Amino acid sequence: MTFESKIKTIEWINNCSRMIDQTILPKEFKLVDVKTAEEMYYAIKDMIVRGAPAIGIAGAHGVALGAIELSKTEKNKEEFLKKLNQKAQYLKSSRPTAVNLMWAVDKQIKLANEIQGSIEDITNALIKNGIKLENEDIEINKKMGDYGAEVVPKGATILTHCNAGALATVGYGTALGVIRSAFAKDPTIKVFADETRPRQQGARLTTWELTQDGIPTTLITDGMCSYFMSKGMINMVVVGADRIAANGDTANKIGTYTVAIAAKYHNVPFYIAAPLSTIDISIKSGKEIPIEERNHEEVTHINGDWICAKDVNIINPGFDVTPNELITGIITEKGILKPNFVDSIKRVFEKE
Amino acid sequence: MTFESKIKTIEWINNCSRMIDQTILPKEFKLVDVKTAEEMYYAIKDMIVRGAPAIGIAGAHGVALGAIELSKTEKNKEEFLKKLNQKAQYLKSSRPTAVNLMWAVDKQIKLANEIQGSIEDITNALIKNGIKLENEDIEINKKMGDYGAEVVPKGATILTHCNAGALATVGYGTALGVIRSAFAKDPTIKVFADETRPRQQGARLTTWELTQDGIPTTLITDGMCSYFMSKGMINMVVVGADRIAANGDTANKIGTYTVAIAAKYHNVPFYIAAPLSTIDISIKSGKEIPIEERNHEEVTHINGDWICAKDVNIINPGFDVTPNELITGIITEKGILKPNFVDSIKRVFEKE
Repeated sequence: MTFESKIKTIEWINNCSRMIDQTILPKEFKLVDVKTAEEMYYAIKDMIVRGAPAIGIAGAHGVALGAIELSKTEKNKEEFLKKLNQKAQYLKSSRPTAVNLMWAVDKQIKLANEIQGSIEDITNALIKNGIKLENEDIEINKKMGDYGAEVVPKGATILTHCNAGALATVGYGTALGVIRSAFAKDPTIKVFADETRPRQQGARLTTWELTQDGIPTTLITDGMCSYFMSKGMINMVVVGADRIAANGDTANKIGTYTVAIAAKYHNVPFYIAAPLSTIDISIKSGKEIPIEERNHEEVTHINGDWICAKDVNIINPGFDVTPNELITGIITEKGILKPNFVDSIKRVFEKE
Repeated sequence: MTFESKIKTIEWINNCSRMIDQTILPKEFKLVDVKTAEEMYYAIKDMIVRGAPAIGIAGAHGVALGAIELSKTEKNKEEFLKKLNQKAQYLKSSRPTAVNLMWAVDKQIKLANEIQGSIEDITNALIKNGIKLENEDIEINKKMGDYGAEVVPKGATILTHCNAGALATVGYGTALGVIRSAFAKDPTIKVFADETRPRQQGARLTTWELTQDGIPTTLITDGMCSYFMSKGMINMVVVGADRIAANGDTANKIGTYTVAIAAKYHNVPFYIAAPLSTIDISIKSGKEIPIEERNHEEVTHINGDWICAKDVNIINPGFDVTPNELITGIITEKGILKPNFVDSIKRVFEKE
């Protein structure tokens, strides 16, 4: 049973990638048309579009935009492919942690090299494939939502961290997709959203998209989760993922690991919701996942204003890695993977 | 070995209680002269002065200010004491969690009732006692600092939450007093300060006072502590307390409990630093500590600006309770109390 959400985060339209500008939500709702690969690099880097699955689609669109640009001047197919590959590598460097970006860009480059036709044929194929990945993302999310809804207790209050929602995907959400599907079945469920400092995606994006869709949402600060767990007011945690290793270790927004430890201490089930494209079977454990170090201003400033002493040091890791021992299950479009994750992940990829 | 800090948070001067306005730090440094018991009620409630020990002194000053006011019009001693008691109850209602406030106000009222003299004698005794408590607070903090410094490993990085510093006391600090004393012995120690949402006392106050005193400080967001602990970059946690039960359960700023769980998971020692006046032996466990519910705007707004969707729900507990099983030791002016806390707390009060 799926829920109809009105939010369309990223969409190929009129040879542009149209996206909701997530840097100004919830104050302002604005659509941005991204027209070149370089514009897409900055749209990803500056987080106009964010969330691992949405970044994947943005990467696929970015390669298509690059092909449109190159096709205007480049007539030699080999040169075209070489330059397209350069643009692809450039796009991949915009956010190093999210594996979906690498996955989608590589998929486009593989396709470009396989097409037995003209530069125009390649360009059209890349556009078409970008749209196909877009539609598949929604379908995958809805399947994940259905699987995930089965493990949500009746009347549960679900805690989520950051935004793994419609705004992190094309339009339904991974963690928030599970919540949408659960809410469609049981309108008594409620959500607690972690603010998610430094960038406050929970406050800015999750509360916006859930209240837009009429799902009751309570905003809490990141340090509060243990308090509410100890009072029995949180029955389940569902979060998204930026990259999952072959053993189930999961990189997600900074602060996720702290929530997972608190959930373990209180025996609250802790689920990851992520498509199989987020699982990177090439890496054995979370130790191999690169952690992006982000701008210090994200910590020292809020809404452009200093919040601390000026001569303070900052370290700003964008992500942390939750070890597999803290994870109850990984909700995917092929069902819920359970521990031992080394085996369950291996099995699901063997079937692929 | 004690450190000389330049910060004087609250001071009786010219028949006023002069305090640093902590609501506008670190942007602006301003002293406020509080002249009546009612002004003191709001100074405490609006957190111009905050931190359990400083609130205690503020309460003591508040009773003295009340006595000065009443002495101008009230000539009947019995009526004077009755009205003074009303002002005392009013002052105590400004912040329900901090036990030091109750402790200091009650101490003043007891003194007022004991004085065998005129209204003027009582008023003078209350003023004198307020100044005495002020000086004792600094002495107590320095003793705590000395005890605490002994358990700080050489070159340690110490995490603290909220502000249990000079700004939370008269002028040296409880948790930050331990850090000051440790730094005086070993200038290679470093501090990580949790931002401490919602009110950001860590960002606004702790980074300000530590960098003022030249102690190297890194600001982190509340969700990051586990990440740095997992990397071995945090060797110890020291926080303050608003109220400690007879079994060692400790109420402190919301988010402390989450840090304590993360510390336990990573085997990082977790210390409370608090004077004996913070221990409330009349309550058996943390379950009996009232948790103050604060303004929703503290969560929904930062620097006066909305940070979330407007139709979101808020629950804003000001404190949480860290159960004794997560606490390595309680650093007091009489030494470090160790588990079993029921026994060690009982013993230290028997000696009193």
